[in-house]
Amino acid sequence: MDNSEFRKQAHKFVDWMADYLEHVEDYPVKSTARPGEITAQIPDSAPATGENMDDIFQDFQNIILPGMTHWQHPGFMAYFPANASPPSVLAEMLTSTLAAQCMSWQTSPAATELEERMMDWLRQLTGLPEEFVGCIQDTASTATLAALLCARERLHKFATNHSGLSIAGTHTTYASAEVHSSVDKAVRIAGLGSDNLRKITVDENFAMNPEDLEHAIESDLNAGCIPTCVVVTLGSTSLSAIDPLRKIGEICQKYKIWLHVDAAWAGSALVLPEFRWMIDGIDLADSLVFNPHKWLLTQFDCSAFFVRDKAALIQTFEILPEYLKTREGDRVNNYRDWGIQLGRRFRALKLWFVLRSYGQEGLQNHLRKHIGFCQDLARKVEDHREFELLAPHPLALFCFRYKPEGLDKEELDLANERLLEKINDSGKLYLTQTRINGQYALRFVSGSPTTEQRHIDEAWALIQNIALTVTTK
Amino acid sequence: MDNSEFRKQAHKFVDWMADYLEHVEDYPVKSTARPGEITAQIPDSAPATGENMDDIFQDFQNIILPGMTHWQHPGFMAYFPANASPPSVLAEMLTSTLAAQCMSWQTSPAATELEERMMDWLRQLTGLPEEFVGCIQDTASTATLAALLCARERLHKFATNHSGLSIAGTHTTYASAEVHSSVDKAVRIAGLGSDNLRKITVDENFAMNPEDLEHAIESDLNAGCIPTCVVVTLGSTSLSAIDPLRKIGEICQKYKIWLHVDAAWAGSALVLPEFRWMIDGIDLADSLVFNPHKWLLTQFDCSAFFVRDKAALIQTFEILPEYLKTREGDRVNNYRDWGIQLGRRFRALKLWFVLRSYGQEGLQNHLRKHIGFCQDLARKVEDHREFELLAPHPLALFCFRYKPEGLDKEELDLANERLLEKINDSGKLYLTQTRINGQYALRFVSGSPTTEQRHIDEAWALIQNIALTVTTK
Repeated sequence: MDNSEFRKQAHKFVDWMADYLEHVEDYPVKSTARPGEITAQIPDSAPATGENMDDIFQDFQNIILPGMTHWQHPGFMAYFPANASPPSVLAEMLTSTLAAQCMSWQTSPAATELEERMMDWLRQLTGLPEEFVGCIQDTASTATLAALLCARERLHKFATNHSGLSIAGTHTTYASAEVHSSVDKAVRIAGLGSDNLRKITVDENFAMNPEDLEHAIESDLNAGCIPTCVVVTLGSTSLSAIDPLRKIGEICQKYKIWLHVDAAWAGSALVLPEFRWMIDGIDLADSLVFNPHKWLLTQFDCSAFFVRDKAALIQTFEILPEYLKTREGDRVNNYRDWGIQLGRRFRALKLWFVLRSYGQEGLQNHLRKHIGFCQDLARKVEDHREFELLAPHPLALFCFRYKPEGLDKEELDLANERLLEKINDSGKLYLTQTRINGQYALRFVSGSPTTEQRHIDEAWALIQNIALTVTTK
Repeated sequence: MDNSEFRKQAHKFVDWMADYLEHVEDYPVKSTARPGEITAQIPDSAPATGENMDDIFQDFQNIILPGMTHWQHPGFMAYFPANASPPSVLAEMLTSTLAAQCMSWQTSPAATELEERMMDWLRQLTGLPEEFVGCIQDTASTATLAALLCARERLHKFATNHSGLSIAGTHTTYASAEVHSSVDKAVRIAGLGSDNLRKITVDENFAMNPEDLEHAIESDLNAGCIPTCVVVTLGSTSLSAIDPLRKIGEICQKYKIWLHVDAAWAGSALVLPEFRWMIDGIDLADSLVFNPHKWLLTQFDCSAFFVRDKAALIQTFEILPEYLKTREGDRVNNYRDWGIQLGRRFRALKLWFVLRSYGQEGLQNHLRKHIGFCQDLARKVEDHREFELLAPHPLALFCFRYKPEGLDKEELDLANERLLEKINDSGKLYLTQTRINGQYALRFVSGSPTTEQRHIDEAWALIQNIALTVTTK
């Protein structure tokens, strides 16, 4: 493809992109494709010779688009949002054109230095301690794994990286029963083992019980285990529970255990001073992750990972073969040594575009708008005699269920499962589920940049209307 | 930013992108920025209120661009290339607009099904066995870590994921002395330990000695260790050495050890039938990774990871909390269970655009062109009485040094270090270094889509001219 063809096609693509964002609401939010439906339309093998871009683009529209779930749809209230604001789309256009590898300072100085600045902008915006430094990771899964590895290595003075874990004993990790599955995954990958992940009981707000944490640590110590890491969750995935950071931090200090804070979704809300209570005690934490790609208008992937002790992070990951040496040495940050991957995209650019386009005020408006939507709607749900809320809802997520009279537990679960399916099949609204105290629950998360009050009103009307149909047959 | 502003800006960006690609040659390939130079131009903190996109874009051009190393420059011959062809830029524009999370089939059916197809297209294009299936990972570092974890878990019937490694004994991993540093990193992360990574001797072509591999395995077995994984390198990072796959595979079969093939860069060359000799013995391998983002015109990140036994991969990574359940269950592929990260970008789209735009023939032309450039130039270097080649060069990479008469070993190293610095400061050409048998060596890698014969000729003239200056003071 020569450059004039690229220019022509790219202009055509831009019009499609702007049209798409303008009309995203007209698509069914959750794809209606059936398994195998897309596959059947893609040839078995690559073409022998090149095809022209008009045909490829046409196929994108005809084959791929109907198979997409539209994450930027105003009715997307499932999982957590994946915010992709227009400024972040613009930045990604530049990133993909430069297509630089940002593994070392030398391989793109501006990428490294902008990343340093952006991490510090984020740190200030969220009220994190001055000592916190960090870098952008792809996902919170990776960042949490990195934190766990730092914990493991610092504990053994970085010797297990060399010796392996076989001689080191049983390493225990602690998190609330509401912790995200990425922690289960990380303890497996890091060789600590999921049997040694202690899921600590939670209180009536689904927050970790610090007394039980301390009890578990004591009991593990008595059994000869090595307490390695505690993960505090701020805003659990199921139902947005907030663990008591300070109390847990004091326990970690007492027992000298690495304290990692998983604020993947809720961390963005720290841009609002009225939510800083969540990080009371952050001075006791060793690391924190939150994802601007969830709720801070910056598109995936962009996970902000902070550590108090940069040396521990680097000592955990640094490897320097001859072919990666650069003359700047350690006078600069080489982010390849701050995580698992060697290769890194230029992710700081989209953050820069977003933080400048919105400014602190714009980010705060965005967050407050969605928290407002959610709180208002939660009140309506609570006031409705045939619905109930199932957990506290401090942010922009609430869990609820339809609870008409006369149904037993099993029938209620079934009715709510059916409610979810019918809502999602409507194409107007996409919700996902969880279980709370064994009960099937629907999650409602507001966060899409395209969502307005009318979408919330329509969503509530839809939920009520569909609910009327789920117990009649 | 409203939609009409987005449309306007995006058109402006497209013109900049096309201009950039047209004139990328005019920029210094390696950034001339000094440490701190970019940082000094970025404010300490985020703005309180939003700024307009014209200003942000202006700053991108004035501040960021001069701090970039231009990976798409025709004189980029450092590390390995990071191919970003125009069709892959176009695809990324769509990907960033849809901004879908492709963790589960349901969260974007078309993304999952297109990824299945694209992995199979790649499998066929590279002549890999029919049983190989896989998914796109971000980097070979991650894919190799995933392979190592599969090896560890399969060995213990997936029990160490649960128990941790403390009771399992010493796990040994094997690779050639030329193996990439990502393997050193992966054995640390996986808890196996870098002391237990056996770096096997290499022959005169820098390929692993199978006899020494078998000897090391026997000796570890006698010492009570648990041989866990062998990594075969096809195209080592330093100097493109090719390990003998079949012989090593036979040893792995005999001892029942997981065999992972790291073909991160050289794997693309398998699209050429004349290079399929590299995978003679692939029927004995358990997994393979190669990066279309290196040499197959698809932009970073796009790493193709294949396994023979999909069940082993899934059993290593699968975790299914309530909030991730979908009604399709395991009737579909949920790629979140095929690797470390939960969140995943829609990476298959760019692969589809590239493989269709070029077709098999276009890809082959691209690869043969660069192999030709490299072989021709290597011959010239070899024929020059003041230069020498330092290793075999079967593909599009050769290692050489300037070797004028009368210099001792140390002076030669110094002269070549100076040569590299001066070349890179020229702004016309960017090379990186390695060490071969203790000698400082320059690496020359051809692969950029923008490189033509004249760039190769200019590079060689530049190298010779600069060489004349490095020993005169």
